[in-house]
Amino acid sequence: MTYSVKFLPHNVSVEVDDNESLIRAAMEAGIHINASCGGSGVCGKCRVLIEEGNVEGGISEHLSSEDREKGYRMACLSEVISDIVVRIPIESEMDTSRLNIHAASRHTAKVMYSNIDELRHDGLFIPPVEKIYLELDSATTENNQADVARIINHLRLKHGEHRLIMGLEVIRKVSDIIREGDFKITVTIVRPVREDGQNEIVNIEPFDTRNRNFAIAVDVGTTTVYGQVLDLQTGKVLSEHGEFNSQISYGEDVISRIIFAEKDDGLEILHQKVVETINKIIEKIIKKAKIGKREVTTITLAGNSTMTQLLLKINPSYIRRDPYVPASIMYPPFHASQIGIDLANHTIALIYPGVSSYVGGDIIAGVMASGIYRASELTLYMDIGTNAEIVIGHKDWMVCTAASAGPAFEGGGVKFGMRATNGAIEDFSINPVTYEPMILTVGNKKAKGICGSGMITLAAKLLETGVINSRGKFNQTLDTPRIRKTDDIWEYVIVYKENTQIDRDITITEPDLDNLIRAKGAMYSAVLTLLKEIGLKVNDIEKIILAGGFGSYVDLESAITIGLLPEIETEKVTYLGNGSLLGCKINCLTNALRRDVAKVVNMMTNFELASTPSYMDHYMGALFLPHTELNYFPRVKERLERLRK
Amino acid sequence: MTYSVKFLPHNVSVEVDDNESLIRAAMEAGIHINASCGGSGVCGKCRVLIEEGNVEGGISEHLSSEDREKGYRMACLSEVISDIVVRIPIESEMDTSRLNIHAASRHTAKVMYSNIDELRHDGLFIPPVEKIYLELDSATTENNQADVARIINHLRLKHGEHRLIMGLEVIRKVSDIIREGDFKITVTIVRPVREDGQNEIVNIEPFDTRNRNFAIAVDVGTTTVYGQVLDLQTGKVLSEHGEFNSQISYGEDVISRIIFAEKDDGLEILHQKVVETINKIIEKIIKKAKIGKREVTTITLAGNSTMTQLLLKINPSYIRRDPYVPASIMYPPFHASQIGIDLANHTIALIYPGVSSYVGGDIIAGVMASGIYRASELTLYMDIGTNAEIVIGHKDWMVCTAASAGPAFEGGGVKFGMRATNGAIEDFSINPVTYEPMILTVGNKKAKGICGSGMITLAAKLLETGVINSRGKFNQTLDTPRIRKTDDIWEYVIVYKENTQIDRDITITEPDLDNLIRAKGAMYSAVLTLLKEIGLKVNDIEKIILAGGFGSYVDLESAITIGLLPEIETEKVTYLGNGSLLGCKINCLTNALRRDVAKVVNMMTNFELASTPSYMDHYMGALFLPHTELNYFPRVKERLERLRK
Repeated sequence: MTYSVKFLPHNVSVEVDDNESLIRAAMEAGIHINASCGGSGVCGKCRVLIEEGNVEGGISEHLSSEDREKGYRMACLSEVISDIVVRIPIESEMDTSRLNIHAASRHTAKVMYSNIDELRHDGLFIPPVEKIYLELDSATTENNQADVARIINHLRLKHGEHRLIMGLEVIRKVSDIIREGDFKITVTIVRPVREDGQNEIVNIEPFDTRNRNFAIAVDVGTTTVYGQVLDLQTGKVLSEHGEFNSQISYGEDVISRIIFAEKDDGLEILHQKVVETINKIIEKIIKKAKIGKREVTTITLAGNSTMTQLLLKINPSYIRRDPYVPASIMYPPFHASQIGIDLANHTIALIYPGVSSYVGGDIIAGVMASGIYRASELTLYMDIGTNAEIVIGHKDWMVCTAASAGPAFEGGGVKFGMRATNGAIEDFSINPVTYEPMILTVGNKKAKGICGSGMITLAAKLLETGVINSRGKFNQTLDTPRIRKTDDIWEYVIVYKENTQIDRDITITEPDLDNLIRAKGAMYSAVLTLLKEIGLKVNDIEKIILAGGFGSYVDLESAITIGLLPEIETEKVTYLGNGSLLGCKINCLTNALRRDVAKVVNMMTNFELASTPSYMDHYMGALFLPHTELNYFPRVKERLERLRK
Repeated sequence: MTYSVKFLPHNVSVEVDDNESLIRAAMEAGIHINASCGGSGVCGKCRVLIEEGNVEGGISEHLSSEDREKGYRMACLSEVISDIVVRIPIESEMDTSRLNIHAASRHTAKVMYSNIDELRHDGLFIPPVEKIYLELDSATTENNQADVARIINHLRLKHGEHRLIMGLEVIRKVSDIIREGDFKITVTIVRPVREDGQNEIVNIEPFDTRNRNFAIAVDVGTTTVYGQVLDLQTGKVLSEHGEFNSQISYGEDVISRIIFAEKDDGLEILHQKVVETINKIIEKIIKKAKIGKREVTTITLAGNSTMTQLLLKINPSYIRRDPYVPASIMYPPFHASQIGIDLANHTIALIYPGVSSYVGGDIIAGVMASGIYRASELTLYMDIGTNAEIVIGHKDWMVCTAASAGPAFEGGGVKFGMRATNGAIEDFSINPVTYEPMILTVGNKKAKGICGSGMITLAAKLLETGVINSRGKFNQTLDTPRIRKTDDIWEYVIVYKENTQIDRDITITEPDLDNLIRAKGAMYSAVLTLLKEIGLKVNDIEKIILAGGFGSYVDLESAITIGLLPEIETEKVTYLGNGSLLGCKINCLTNALRRDVAKVVNMMTNFELASTPSYMDHYMGALFLPHTELNYFPRVKERLERLRK
């Protein structure tokens, strides 16, 4: 159910979902309402008048009973439950004059969903680890072939299965299981990637257990590890959970982890830490899904090359040393218990292959999930994080690279930076006259800091209103106490301490903006460099797919305004979510994809930015908001001119 | 150097090796000399006169100085060092009259050698586990492919190697090793059995280590385990050692071991015991060969189906239960350390495939070693032991079966039975007039008991001289104190206690003979049953190959006389030695053989005697010496008639 919300005097409407908070509706519509508490209802500044329709809630001690009767409500506490018309109180004449040049509406990317039914319909829903039920002939004097031969011959003759092998661990239990099930058994088979590869029988159970076949997908992120339980019968996600990668205490980024791994026992420690994290997640999602560990037949894991090598206990030292060589890009299937994962001995682990030291399995998983390798339009795939991975191409070719963006997008290197957890400022608007802010926080809690998507919107809005210039420096002449110099550093006060959870003013500083500019510059110049290497231009890009932790809430126009994303119609941007996790999920569900993966890895051309001379030039040019070359951003150029006229 | 020894008054000559003992030369020639002490020089009965030529030694206190001067010597203490003429003192007139009907000369089987140079010449000397030396291109910015990809691509492009896989354990060390060797490395590859199988890289070492590639061959016998170290560069055996299988304390034969394995922890205990035995052997042969454990790339093991399953810790229970089903007949290659064998992690274990519960890997190894699967003549292969395995066939087809002979051939179920160790009576002759014995023992020590080959000769000679009849019963009318009844059991005294090590008379009893008859009957009737099933007759057999522990010294004519072997010219019998060990050795040396093994296993038709109705009839007929049907043994029939006339 959606409702229409009309804002007056701006005369701007927006469609919102049932129970959406009114302040978020305003932010969505690009309507500024002063609000300092992040939507927690304590600052009392977001008073609005409901002129038509009804909202739920919206009452607080900041409203007199008289105001309440007139129809005033606190926007942050009001939930939309019908079509409404809302009037925003105007603070000054100047505000009125600028009513018609309100900021761009908020545009988040469409979320891309994977369609299991489509896989099933295309006959591709054959998991890499499959269960087959067999009703064998009983052993008799006339037919007393060995138990293993009985199974393999039956699979060959009755199921058309060939090139079958069975390891010692399975052979050890065959005779007992076959008789426990009275010659009715279910075998678990791991399919090969190559058509001419071997099918390995990795488990055998008595009777028919086909309806108990589960998989786990795990995205092994540098910062966060996510896991899902999948039902391989239905393709459904049964449970999901994320935890911080407990390697974090040994280094924030991959380089510091590699350095730690080079110390005595460092590799062993990091290996154990990530395995502990994975085991913790497995424990939770298994319990939530109400399944047994022994029913998990497969686990697919994806991570960047360093995370992959640490997970597998492979010395990652050469990843960070010129010429940046990973140990391997493909790994054979193995038993999950071999690396300490707390699953049954028969559970098979599949590791996503990568391309190079800095384009790992996580990005390949995302590429597979996004379908770029099947696309006909020229597509830009960006996984934004501390290490940003970029792929450009379509079904015929793909190029990829990785840029070290630094931690600014994940809240690092920013004075009040934080991850997108409760109290993080995730959205922002600024009154172009008073320079008073409007903020929204994750969970509508009092502010604690600023998350990545918040930083992007902050920078964009400060730029649009002229609070900062294209180099990220504050306009020191503006008449507001919020722009100030503390300890020799210029900053803008977003929330005064009384409205924070931290008893300090939350500000954004010039060094913060500098870090952000360098991060977005690294990404954008990586895109330009790739395009130049393949002889294309930025406006050849027909489609953008965003992946990564912070991509879901980022305002696309803001991201374009600061020059993080190339300028493109926002409808052409889709958001994949955790591409790595999604890729793992699809991998668990269809073996056809694993074959495609091998093709994709082979067709992907990797560029090392460090050894591509044009990169540094592109990088220097990208250290502006949005860019030194404004022709790359005609829409932003036009808006900036209009807003500042 | 060989010498001619002529015996008078028999006028029989024999060729013997330098330093052969004179008493063994006599036994070889079929000349009887009374001798009770086994050749240890204590009974003083074997006085002979050297008429021409010289011997070394031969002097004892049993000879007066006068006798010595005349040229008398003790035969058992004399070594032949020139051509000689020897006169045997005749004890009675009756002896003289029978001089010309002395027993048949001793015939042992020709030993079959495997020829490594022939393998090399045929291009077959490619071990299943091979080392390949690679000089890789160094990693550069232009060529910074992953380390594993670098190796695999190099093998593909420069060595024509395809379908390569590498397990996680190897991938873990690739990056360090490759740099330790400055991009010069040696990879160890396990070849597949099938042409279209995968080549697994199981180890990687810095620099060129091709000249350090060793294998171990192990015959896992129910009673004894033998191991050899092989140099895979030269094909030479560097060291060898045997130990009793320490499972013995849990049961003498496979059935009692299976019953023990069915108890709590029984399987685990038996598994550990045989692995301990193997590890003890490995320790010794590695040391003797002066090689390092890490230099052993492969170990091939063969055993009967029960030994194989106990070694691999697979419940053997169904092997002994109708319809006698083994867990598997083929096993994949695995890491030796997986079953507790004390070798490096990279050492690959290959297990000889079998055919059925009672025709196991040991017999297939023997078949491979014997070359029967390449023969054009119809060949009978017999591995004689507690469990006797029999194969009949040639290059186009083979049939096999196993007979439970009981332990008589290995010294079990016989009152004074023992294994063929020092003091075991291994050869025997009897004076046809006085019924006094001539015995030879292993190591020329005072007698302790009778070994398998000794039993066969004893039975044959007693039969030839009429001491026993064709049912193995003593002729109670003969005039000799050696035939007597003790505790209601008839027996023949072979050695009086004063000449033994055990202070008891060593005898052979009617129950002993009964056990022997049943054992040889089981084997012979198994041969007849197989022949009948394939529509052939016993005289169609063109060649016999004997394998097994006791086969090396057995007197072929005696074995034919008692009806253990079909009657055939003794030159057509060859002795393979430990066929199982030899098969393991060849398996370590040439992968071509492993492909043949798969073919052999498939072309071999197995008969279960228990479910072959004609077996019982054949068995009943074979419970005679040599057989109820004397036409099967025309030569024996003729000899018996001649000797007893």
